[in-house]
Amino acid sequence: MEMQLPPGLDRRGFDSALAAMRRTIGDTKVFATDLDRQTYIDAYALGDGMEHAASMALAPETVQEVQAIVRVANEHKLPLWPVSRGRNLGYGMAAPRMAGSAVLDMTHMNKIIEVDTRYAHAQLEPGVGFYQMHEHLRDNRIPLWMSVPANGWGSVIGNALERGIGYTPYGDHTSKICGMEVVTPTGEIVRTGMGAMEGNKAWAHYPHGFGPSWDQMFVQSNFGIVTKANMWLMPEPEMSAHVQVNLPRPEDIGWAIDALAELRQRGVIEHNIIFGNYLHDASAFTTRADWYQGEGPLPDAIAEKIQKQFNVGWWTFHLSLFGYGRIVEENMKIVRAALEPRLGAGLDWKLWKRGEPIEPFGPSTGVPFVLPLNVANWMGGRGGHVGFSPVMPPSGELALAAFRSRKARFEAAGLDYYCSFTMGHRHIANVNMIIFNRDDADMVKRTQALFTQMIKDAREEGYGEYRTHIDYMDPVADTYDFNNGALMRLNEKVKDALDPNGILAPGKNGIWPARLRKEKRA
Amino acid sequence: MEMQLPPGLDRRGFDSALAAMRRTIGDTKVFATDLDRQTYIDAYALGDGMEHAASMALAPETVQEVQAIVRVANEHKLPLWPVSRGRNLGYGMAAPRMAGSAVLDMTHMNKIIEVDTRYAHAQLEPGVGFYQMHEHLRDNRIPLWMSVPANGWGSVIGNALERGIGYTPYGDHTSKICGMEVVTPTGEIVRTGMGAMEGNKAWAHYPHGFGPSWDQMFVQSNFGIVTKANMWLMPEPEMSAHVQVNLPRPEDIGWAIDALAELRQRGVIEHNIIFGNYLHDASAFTTRADWYQGEGPLPDAIAEKIQKQFNVGWWTFHLSLFGYGRIVEENMKIVRAALEPRLGAGLDWKLWKRGEPIEPFGPSTGVPFVLPLNVANWMGGRGGHVGFSPVMPPSGELALAAFRSRKARFEAAGLDYYCSFTMGHRHIANVNMIIFNRDDADMVKRTQALFTQMIKDAREEGYGEYRTHIDYMDPVADTYDFNNGALMRLNEKVKDALDPNGILAPGKNGIWPARLRKEKRA
Repeated sequence: MEMQLPPGLDRRGFDSALAAMRRTIGDTKVFATDLDRQTYIDAYALGDGMEHAASMALAPETVQEVQAIVRVANEHKLPLWPVSRGRNLGYGMAAPRMAGSAVLDMTHMNKIIEVDTRYAHAQLEPGVGFYQMHEHLRDNRIPLWMSVPANGWGSVIGNALERGIGYTPYGDHTSKICGMEVVTPTGEIVRTGMGAMEGNKAWAHYPHGFGPSWDQMFVQSNFGIVTKANMWLMPEPEMSAHVQVNLPRPEDIGWAIDALAELRQRGVIEHNIIFGNYLHDASAFTTRADWYQGEGPLPDAIAEKIQKQFNVGWWTFHLSLFGYGRIVEENMKIVRAALEPRLGAGLDWKLWKRGEPIEPFGPSTGVPFVLPLNVANWMGGRGGHVGFSPVMPPSGELALAAFRSRKARFEAAGLDYYCSFTMGHRHIANVNMIIFNRDDADMVKRTQALFTQMIKDAREEGYGEYRTHIDYMDPVADTYDFNNGALMRLNEKVKDALDPNGILAPGKNGIWPARLRKEKRA
Repeated sequence: MEMQLPPGLDRRGFDSALAAMRRTIGDTKVFATDLDRQTYIDAYALGDGMEHAASMALAPETVQEVQAIVRVANEHKLPLWPVSRGRNLGYGMAAPRMAGSAVLDMTHMNKIIEVDTRYAHAQLEPGVGFYQMHEHLRDNRIPLWMSVPANGWGSVIGNALERGIGYTPYGDHTSKICGMEVVTPTGEIVRTGMGAMEGNKAWAHYPHGFGPSWDQMFVQSNFGIVTKANMWLMPEPEMSAHVQVNLPRPEDIGWAIDALAELRQRGVIEHNIIFGNYLHDASAFTTRADWYQGEGPLPDAIAEKIQKQFNVGWWTFHLSLFGYGRIVEENMKIVRAALEPRLGAGLDWKLWKRGEPIEPFGPSTGVPFVLPLNVANWMGGRGGHVGFSPVMPPSGELALAAFRSRKARFEAAGLDYYCSFTMGHRHIANVNMIIFNRDDADMVKRTQALFTQMIKDAREEGYGEYRTHIDYMDPVADTYDFNNGALMRLNEKVKDALDPNGILAPGKNGIWPARLRKEKRA
């Protein structure tokens, strides 16, 4: 595999940086063979992934090693791309935005430093995965629940740092961060919130400190490397109730979003609600070829067959309630009153009570799963997917309009429409996932064109993405255009002040350091 | 009144800055007489307040005028101290940290730009006060509730920007900010979150944007001037229930905090709980002289008399429940089960139901009040107060220890112990308020010594303040000492990058610009 050098470093400079890294953290923590580099290519890359190919990977085990790496990187102007566990599926995985960057792989910093049962929080290193954490809680019979995302193979901290979401009342992961330790681009250790005081006892209890609050500045950011963070966990409830709801027609998403937006605003439903179309189940358990051999979008008759086989609707969503038994029971009545008249059918709740195993309820009770990984196989060949996810008000009318616009674009591109709406506390994210076959060059091209078109469409409608694949970070950042990109200029000022050599994650979310700003247009 | 010039400006430079301000925004918006300056002296200053005396005040009416002021301030190196309505009582009111600063008084930027009833948010300028907002909601029969702080004469936005709190489930005001417009120290208009996209429809719905989130960087900060912000409001519930609980003995705070911390963690109680000692009611309705003429702390016998007259405990707190009627009723049972066995008495709930007036319930239903303003009269003379408020875990044991330590310090200083614990979602703030007579020089001295001592005590115990008076911003900032003040160095880097001339709020929360950093030790 051809080696990509970072801009500004020739082979000699690179070799010198590599040697310095080996000297500094030891050979066994530096990975720079062709096979190593191959490992960090985005498995779902649109194309061969070489435009995001890493030059090496570095795997520190301590914060001091992170500092040492940062010092060497500054000396040699070697760009670093930190990943927690590198499982940022559909967004580039572990691959850096800029080819030639060294991946700073935090997988080996995976200590569960503390779990406080009484006050329901944990202090974790970024390498701690959802499965590891789940097993820790389970094996030690700690009555706290995690919130896990779709595909729980990643990092607890990493997911929160990208604003990932889960399915419990603690599912807005980034808002559950309460103080961090960060290594700055110049190698200083900083602690945020109350942790800015040595030995402070309230670090994991109060999310702010004295003065400006930094936590969210290290989210989707290249201002620092998070080396540990406190995360709030959910106290095990007395009871929970779960129900699957099927909506038979595509246009049902309109009334359902309006009804559920009110229940979310009023705190009856406290978790992110995922409205997924019938392709979710079909792609988890089967491939397209099992259903249809033709070209173009799936015919409606197939859609009906899929819904029947998996007992799903055109849209399906799951609702959960958590808390004291008597509260859960009353909330079930409120949800019934809101939905059953429109559904024309009763809700069939499944109950969990304290003392029973949570595993059968899966992610709704914070148990990690990876079933949605299968999605990538839908089209055949080496599969991949990439999602376009603009944020919108939780309005049925706007959701229907967006749905129709995106669906028409997918159909015109000859691609199957895998769609979700994810309802947060006061917003929806409209997740339009393109599933493609990497081995089909024409399909890859259509995928890219469709993505670019959707960025443009959504911008015109007044929506922007909350997160995106490394391929699209610049064009998506460009849609944030108020006052000619004033917020980006602010980000750049901070970037240049904190990272004068421009070594940390150049191009992350569209933020480039001064010396590489021209790369942005490359 | 002697005029204080800002450091680095002689009289001629100052006059030239003043003339430029008059030319730029017009005479009627520039205030620079002795009487004007007197208006901006902290009414509760420990001393004559001259060390925080403003040199002038500027009252813009539009964001363009704010930009113009910032440009002139940069040209003339005139420091600006922005205040929303300048009612930051007990923290310096409208007075600047650094003498000679020009107060940038946003009181006249008081437009309620939008109230979205369906989605329960408002876009406000910083001059909008709690009373103004309350009247707007009431007169337009908008079924949304505010959250108001003790003393509702201030600014809705200003209070959120200082991390003030209120008494409803929306009482963590800073967390209800969802996107801002800010003028940077160099005069650029920036919008945060989704507002970074021109015309974005989700600005007030989703608190983040793409990349790092800035909102909390403009809180307790001197990185920008907030010119508008979106605030989430609470949808009017179907029902609410309110109860006063009296704890007869000082040590009852221990079990009460433990019991309520669990109810807060589990979401049964969703608002900040204020545990206040008997002096709260006594000082709201009477003065010390009504009870006692002697020197030294109030005798226990007086404390008992006060509790009897006002029907309060040694500690008193209020609980409220909000939501659908059936949920409120079940939650009342849960609260009863948690508290009544320890209290040995039943809770006497008062109910509010939709359609009834909320006014009789006051701040518990978001109705502003100013009764606690009377506190300052307790000691006689020109009164004032200043609060020391470290943040702690919500532990009864730790609360009791802090209570005993602080109480002993108050008594040794011969000052009455006005104490609260404020319980947030997962923390408590221990508010130790010193009430003093500004005309009693010795009492002022004892107040200052006690405050300084408590900063030191709390630091040793592992606690820091969440907010402080302008007199104590530097010493409190100094307690955040991890890695030799690493977070402050980070703040200073950003300060210098965003505010190269050091014109915006020098010294705010201990953050000084490079050119004035020596002032910090002054």
